[in-house]
Order: sequence, then structure tokens, then C-alpha cells
Amino acid sequence: MNELLVLRPDLIEFCVLREGCDTARLPGEKTVVLDGRNFESLASTVHSQGILAVARQPEYEKLDLPRKDPFALVLDRIADPGNFGTILRTARAVGLREVWAVKGGVDPFGDKTIRSASSAQFALSIRLAESLEEMTAALGKLGVIRFFRTEPAEGHSVFREPDLFRDSAIVLGNEANGAGPVPGALPLNIPMPGSAESLNVAQAATVILFESVRRMEKSI
Amino acid sequence: MNELLVLRPDLIEFCVLREGCDTARLPGEKTVVLDGRNFESLASTVHSQGILAVARQPEYEKLDLPRKDPFALVLDRIADPGNFGTILRTARAVGLREVWAVKGGVDPFGDKTIRSASSAQFALSIRLAESLEEMTAALGKLGVIRFFRTEPAEGHSVFREPDLFRDSAIVLGNEANGAGPVPGALPLNIPMPGSAESLNVAQAATVILFESVRRMEKSI
Repeated sequence: MNELLVLRPDLIEFCVLREGCDTARLPGEKTVVLDGRNFESLASTVHSQGILAVARQPEYEKLDLPRKDPFALVLDRIADPGNFGTILRTARAVGLREVWAVKGGVDPFGDKTIRSASSAQFALSIRLAESLEEMTAALGKLGVIRFFRTEPAEGHSVFREPDLFRDSAIVLGNEANGAGPVPGALPLNIPMPGSAESLNVAQAATVILFESVRRMEKSI
Repeated sequence: MNELLVLRPDLIEFCVLREGCDTARLPGEKTVVLDGRNFESLASTVHSQGILAVARQPEYEKLDLPRKDPFALVLDRIADPGNFGTILRTARAVGLREVWAVKGGVDPFGDKTIRSASSAQFALSIRLAESLEEMTAALGKLGVIRFFRTEPAEGHSVFREPDLFRDSAIVLGNEANGAGPVPGALPLNIPMPGSAESLNVAQAATVILFESVRRMEKSI
């Protein structure tokens, strides 16, 4: 909520405030104050912060505008709002400026997704494609020359592939079915010495995204 | 469920199977078959796999037994079952054999926790302490010589601290309040070039745990 007020106040249509809550950042002319009981009848969570806002959804970024990051993170129909949101939050933490999503998964602006993302939706651009084919074609036109697709047990190690973050796109797939086919994509592997079969997709994204940070950091 | 059958069949008291589902691995003498309607009335998820089991909870590992891993991952009152479970799943994926938890957070064997963990509970030992003080005292007796505690904006970088995984304990804290105080603990920082204030605790755990894998892998 704070993120919305700080990053995108232009989107706010009006706010509802619980009596007694802090009003410092709220657009006064657009704010209604309600007593506790009336406020709670509107809130969708039990422990609300005491502020609600009705805001317009930001526009999706057009697919043919120049890329803003050295590599593109592509989410192919992620189905769980918690996973999608967590990936956005992590993408923001590592300094990505945009995330590329294929339709058919969760609503990037659903309330659960916004909550898991700590409102990173308002700090990032989101590009939306009808299909993975449309997405990869668009990325190709924008100068992406390598596609990586996570594979469970084989492929280029995320810790050793030198070109992982150079004019590349990294495709992460749906929790149950994985990512769709990408002709010519290189298999990308996250080494797992343990006995687990796979990682949660948000954890896979986190390993990949922070590997990009590590390479900038000159690690040991 | 599969994990329980493969890893800890000794814990199973009895199974309930939906008519028509696969029975290959089930202990026949302990299995009851129900028709669809009766089965669904027992299942707690909408899309059940068609198998239910009543199983005993594994014993917690005693706090004074020798450590099994080069470093200890300590979870101080993690409150969200999804986070706790995801951390267990990730710990298993990187090859840890045990996780150390402080009471006051989620039930490690709650149904949501087991689901998020993909049943990693049955592959890992879990050690449980009454308090963070009891935990650090026990770890000290077992030869842990360094404690790390994640801090948002300062401290030893997870990518550069040479002794991060050597006879150390890494303490991750509650989502709202962070980890409790650990006298003498070194601050551990996950570099975040972006504008986010913090990471989800499960993402922080993932970055740390996979850094231990990377160091074994001789990365670029």
C-alpha cells in the first residue's frame, strides 16, 4: 500500500482510511475516513493496515519497446499467486526493471499477487504476451540472442554459464507442467546435491536472479 | 505423500485410497479403499491425489546429538507455513540433512507446511528448541564457532564471507520481527542492488543455501 502511495500516486482514484490511522502520505482530497466497524466490512484481510485504496491498474508495457535490462526474465503461465508475487518482489530486489509474463497464469494485479510481491508491481514494468511464441518472437526482435529454459537434471549450470545474463532470456515455467517449448533454447540447470526432485519455481528464480547479483559483486 | 511412502513407510498407521487410484506402493494390509464421494469427504484439498494416510509424526532429533552438516540453518519462529515449508524443501535440495527450528512459529508438521515442503519433513531431521538462547547454547556445545544473523543493509556479504559455511550457524528470523538477538553474532547481508526494502525469508534462505552449493561447484 505504501509502495502504491510512494511509487504510483497517479493511479489512485480514492482512499478509505480507518479512523485514527496515519494520514501523512494520503491524498487528502481523495480520502474518506470510516470508523472501525465500517472499515473492517470493506477490508479483505483480517489484519489490515487501516488503509484501502481504489487504484487504476498500470498499463502493461508494450512488447515492442526497447528492453530495459541486460537479460529478460520470462514467466510462462505461473499459476500460483504466491510464486508469481514472490518472483516480482525478488526481481525488484536484484534491480531488474521489467518482467515478461505469458498469459494463462495468474493475474499479475490480483490481490494475492500484489501482497506476495510487496507491491513490486508498481515498481516494475510488466510485459504481457498472448503466448510463449509471441514472447520469444518479440524478444528476438529486441536483440535477445539466447534463450535458456530450466531443466531439472541437465544443461548449463547457472553458476558456470558465462553468457547467462548477456542479451538472454531465461524462461521459467508453470508449476505443474514446466515452461512451454522454445525452439533452440539452451537447457539451464540449477545444481542440487540433495535428493529433492525439483525446486519451487520461485526458489529457482531466486537462485538465478541472485547469481546475476553475485557476478556483479566479485564474489570469492 | 509419495515421499512418506518411500522415505518413512514405518510411520504409516493406515492409508485410505480412492477407488480406481494406483496402489503399487501402498501397504496393502493397512489400506482401506473408499468410493469417490466418501473419499472426498475426508480429503482436505480439492484436487487430492486420491491417497490419504494417517501417519505418526517423526520424532524431533535431540539437541545434543552430533551435527550432521558443516553448517546449521536456524529458523527463529518463522510464522508462515509456506515459507517454513519452502525452506525445508530448499534445504533438502541443497543436500542439508537437518534444520534447526525455534518454537513459537508454525508447526513443522502442519498440513500446509508439509505441502509447501513437498514432504521434505520426512527426508530431513528437525531439531526443535524452546528458545533461540537454548538453540545457540546447544549449537555452541556441538562445535559451532560462528553465528550469522541476516541484516537488511549491512554486514558480511553472503557472496564474500569465506567462513560462512564452516562450523557456523545462520539464523533466519520471523517475517515481521526478524531473528531474535544472538550475542556475538556477525551480521550477514544479501546484496540487493534494486530498490526493495527486504526479501521474503524463504528467498533469503534460498540465496544462502545455494551459495553453499555454488562454492562446492567451482563456479565462474
